[in-house]
Amino acid sequence: MIGIDDEKFIRGKVPMTKEEIRILTLAKAKIGEKDFVVDVGAGTGSLSIEAAKIAKQGYVFAVEKNPAAVDLIGQNAEKFEIDNIVIINSEAPEGLRNVSRIDVAIVGGSGGKITEILDAIDSKMKVGGRIVLNFITVQSLSACLAWLKNHLDYKYEAIQVQITKLEMVGGYDMYKAQNPVHIVTAEKFLRGRTKNVIKVAFYS
Amino acid sequence: MIGIDDEKFIRGKVPMTKEEIRILTLAKAKIGEKDFVVDVGAGTGSLSIEAAKIAKQGYVFAVEKNPAAVDLIGQNAEKFEIDNIVIINSEAPEGLRNVSRIDVAIVGGSGGKITEILDAIDSKMKVGGRIVLNFITVQSLSACLAWLKNHLDYKYEAIQVQITKLEMVGGYDMYKAQNPVHIVTAEKFLRGRTKNVIKVAFYS
Amino acid sequence: MIGIDDEKFIRGKVPMTKEEIRILTLAKAKIGEKDFVVDVGAGTGSLSIEAAKIAKQGYVFAVEKNPAAVDLIGQNAEKFEIDNIVIINSEAPEGLRNVSRIDVAIVGGSGGKITEILDAIDSKMKVGGRIVLNFITVQSLSACLAWLKNHLDYKYEAIQVQITKLEMVGGYDMYKAQNPVHIVTAEKFLRGRTKNVIKVAFYS
Amino acid sequence: MIGIDDEKFIRGKVPMTKEEIRILTLAKAKIGEKDFVVDVGAGTGSLSIEAAKIAKQGYVFAVEKNPAAVDLIGQNAEKFEIDNIVIINSEAPEGLRNVSRIDVAIVGGSGGKITEILDAIDSKMKVGGRIVLNFITVQSLSACLAWLKNHLDYKYEAIQVQITKLEMVGGYDMYKAQNPVHIVTAEKFLRGRTKNVIKVAFYS
Repeated sequence: MIGIDDEKFIRGKVPMTKEEIRILTLAKAKIGEKDFVVDVGAGTGSLSIEAAKIAKQGYVFAVEKNPAAVDLIGQNAEKFEIDNIVIINSEAPEGLRNVSRIDVAIVGGSGGKITEILDAIDSKMKVGGRIVLNFITVQSLSACLAWLKNHLDYKYEAIQVQITKLEMVGGYDMYKAQNPVHIVTAEKFLRGRTKNVIKVAFYS
Repeated sequence: MIGIDDEKFIRGKVPMTKEEIRILTLAKAKIGEKDFVVDVGAGTGSLSIEAAKIAKQGYVFAVEKNPAAVDLIGQNAEKFEIDNIVIINSEAPEGLRNVSRIDVAIVGGSGGKITEILDAIDSKMKVGGRIVLNFITVQSLSACLAWLKNHLDYKYEAIQVQITKLEMVGGYDMYKAQNPVHIVTAEKFLRGRTKNVIKVAFYS
Repeated sequence: MIGIDDEKFIRGKVPMTKEEIRILTLAKAKIGEKDFVVDVGAGTGSLSIEAAKIAKQGYVFAVEKNPAAVDLIGQNAEKFEIDNIVIINSEAPEGLRNVSRIDVAIVGGSGGKITEILDAIDSKMKVGGRIVLNFITVQSLSACLAWLKNHLDYKYEAIQVQITKLEMVGGYDMYKAQNPVHIVTAEKFLRGRTKNVIKVAFYS
Repeated sequence: MIGIDDEKFIRGKVPMTKEEIRILTLAKAKIGEKDFVVDVGAGTGSLSIEAAKIAKQGYVFAVEKNPAAVDLIGQNAEKFEIDNIVIINSEAPEGLRNVSRIDVAIVGGSGGKITEILDAIDSKMKVGGRIVLNFITVQSLSACLAWLKNHLDYKYEAIQVQITKLEMVGGYDMYKAQNPVHIVTAEKFLRGRTKNVIKVAFYS
C-alpha cells in the first residue's frame, strides 16, 4: 500500500504538503531501501514519514527550523512507529552540515535560500542521486532552474500540478481549486565526474 | 476601453463573477448595440452593467431572486450611470416570463434549474442569438451539455477556465488558485427552423 | 521505491495513463498485498503492472477488449517479471463475469458503459473495498457521480488533476499542458448492509 | 460587441494568441480611444487589430521581425478595414525607436530580450500608462517580475490562465488542455517621479 491520507497525520497549525503532491514527490524521488534521505523544510514531517517507510534500512534527516513543526515531526514519527528519522532543528543549508552523504534530497521549503541549499545538497549527493523540490513561488522555481542549467551534471524535469477537489455541496459537486505546486526533479549524472577535466590545446 | 475591474463594483456579501470570467463571458456573448439581453442569476449585477454598456440602445433584464443582491444591482447601475437595466426580482425561469424576446442570454447562476431555464430562454431566443453560461458544478454543466445535445438547432463550445493569481508575499510571487469555472457558449442556428418539417415521400 | 517511469513500459500505439495520473490512482487505490484487483480498460497494462507489484500475493485481472493492447500487457508483464496478472480479453462489464471477488477496482476506460461497469464491480466488491476511476469526459464523470449518489453504501472523493510539463526549448522552460484527468475514489462502507432495513415505529 | 473569434483572422503558419488570452490581454490593457499602443511581437496581428478597433482615434504600432508575419498583419488589417495600424518590421526593442510616445504596450513575444524591451517601453511610457505582457516560459516571466520589482513606479498584477476546451468526440465532451499563459499587467504610477528624492535627516 502506498500513500498516507492527509487526515492520518497530526498537523497543528503547520502547513502540510497535500497528499497528492506528497505522493508525486515520493514517486519522483525513487527512494531505495537503504537510502540516506534529507527532507529540507520538513514541516509536519509528512514527507519524512513516508520516505522513512520506504528507506526502511536507511535514514531520513528531517531539517526544520520551526520548533513547533519539530514537535509535530516527533509526534508523527511516534504515531507511525518510525525509528529511522533524525530530526535536525535548524535552518537550511546549515542543518545539512552533519549529514554525511545524500542519496535522495527532498526540498519542501527553501526559505529564500534555494541556491545555497542546492549547493549544500550537491556537495554530498552521490552520482545517480535525486533531488525533488516543491515550489509555490515564481522566484524560487526560477532560481532552482537557473542553478540546474549551470550544473550540467544534473538532468531535470519539472511539472506544475494543479489539483481541483470536487466538494459536495447539496447534491452538487463543486470545483474547489488548490494552489498549484511546481515539482522539479533532478538526477545527478556520471558525466559530472569529468566536469573538471581541462581541455588544453597545444600549438607549436 | 473594455472590462471593469472587480474593485470598481459595490459588492456587499453577494458572490461576484471574477473579472477574468466576466470579460470572457462578455466576449463569448457577442452582444450587439440594440440587443435585448437577459442576465439570469445576476448577483451584484457586474455582468449586467458591462452588458448594458455594450447594448447601449437595447436592454438588459437582470433576473435575481436575492433581495440583497437586487439592491446591489440598483446601486451599481446608479454608480455606473446605467439606465437600460430592468431588474426582475424573481427566481428563474419564472422571472423570464415578462421578457418579450431574447437576443443574448447570460446565465451566471441556475439554482439547480438549468433545464427549465434553458427551455424558457430557448422559447424567446431569436435565430442567431447566443446563450453564455457559467458553471461551477459538474451536475449543472452536465445537464446543460445534455440539453444542448438534444437541441440540434444550437451549436456550442465549452471551456474550463482556471485562473491563478500571483500574489506578492515579501519579494515573492506566490501562486494562488481561483476556483475553475466552465463557460458554455451556444448559438441558435437557422436550421432549427426546419426541425419540425416532416419529410414525406410519395410512392405510386 | 514507488512509481515506474512512462518510458520503461513497452507502449506501441495504445494510449497510456501518464505516470503522474498512474501514481495518484495507485495511491488512492490503497491496494493490499493479498488483494484481488481488477483493472478495467487496462490499455498497455501500466496500471496493472504497478498494481501487481503491490498485490504481491494477490492477483490483478486486466480487462481489455483491444487485442493489440492485450499483447502489450503480456509483453510488459514479461518485461517486469510479473506473474500475478490475469489478462481477460473482453469488453467490460462482460469481462468481469469470471472474477470471483474484488478488493480493489481500477477503471481507466469505460467505453461509455460506466453505469454497467460500476454495477458489475459493486456486485463483487467487499465492504471496505475501493474503486478508483479515471475520466477524461464530462459525461462519464457525471454518470459515475450520479451512480455514487444513488449508492449510499459508498463514500467518495473526486479530484481534477492538471499536469503541465516544463519543456526545455533553448534555455527556456516552456509550459506544455497535458489534458486534465478526473480521478474519482469510492470506498464501500459497512452501513450499506443496512440500507434495506425498514425502520417501523409501533404506536399502541 | 467585443472580441473577435480566432477563425476570423487570416493565420498562415504564424502562431496566434488564442482568443481567450487575447480578450483578457485587451481587458487588462484598458486602451483608450486616442491611445498610442505598441504591440511587441505582433505575430498575425490579432491583438493589434483588436487594439486598433478600440483606439479608433489613436494608433497601434505593430512590431514584428518575421516577414511572413508582417504580411499577415497587413492582410488582416485589410480584412478588418483597419487603417490605424503602423507595421514596424523589426526586432524589439530596436523597432520601438521611432515610436514617439506610448500609452499602452502589449508584449506578446519578447524573443529573450524582455529586460531591454521593458526599458525601451518605460522610456516612452506616460504616467498612468499600462504594459500587458504574455509569457509562456518561466524565465521570461521571472525576468519581467524582477524588472518590475526594481521599478517602483510601476504596480503590477500577474495571473496564470489555463484554458481547457471541451472537444466533442462522439457524444462525449472531452477535456483538451491548451498551454497555460501568464499575463502580467503593470501600470506606471505618479509616485515614480519622486523616486530619486533623497531623504536626509540632519542631526545637530
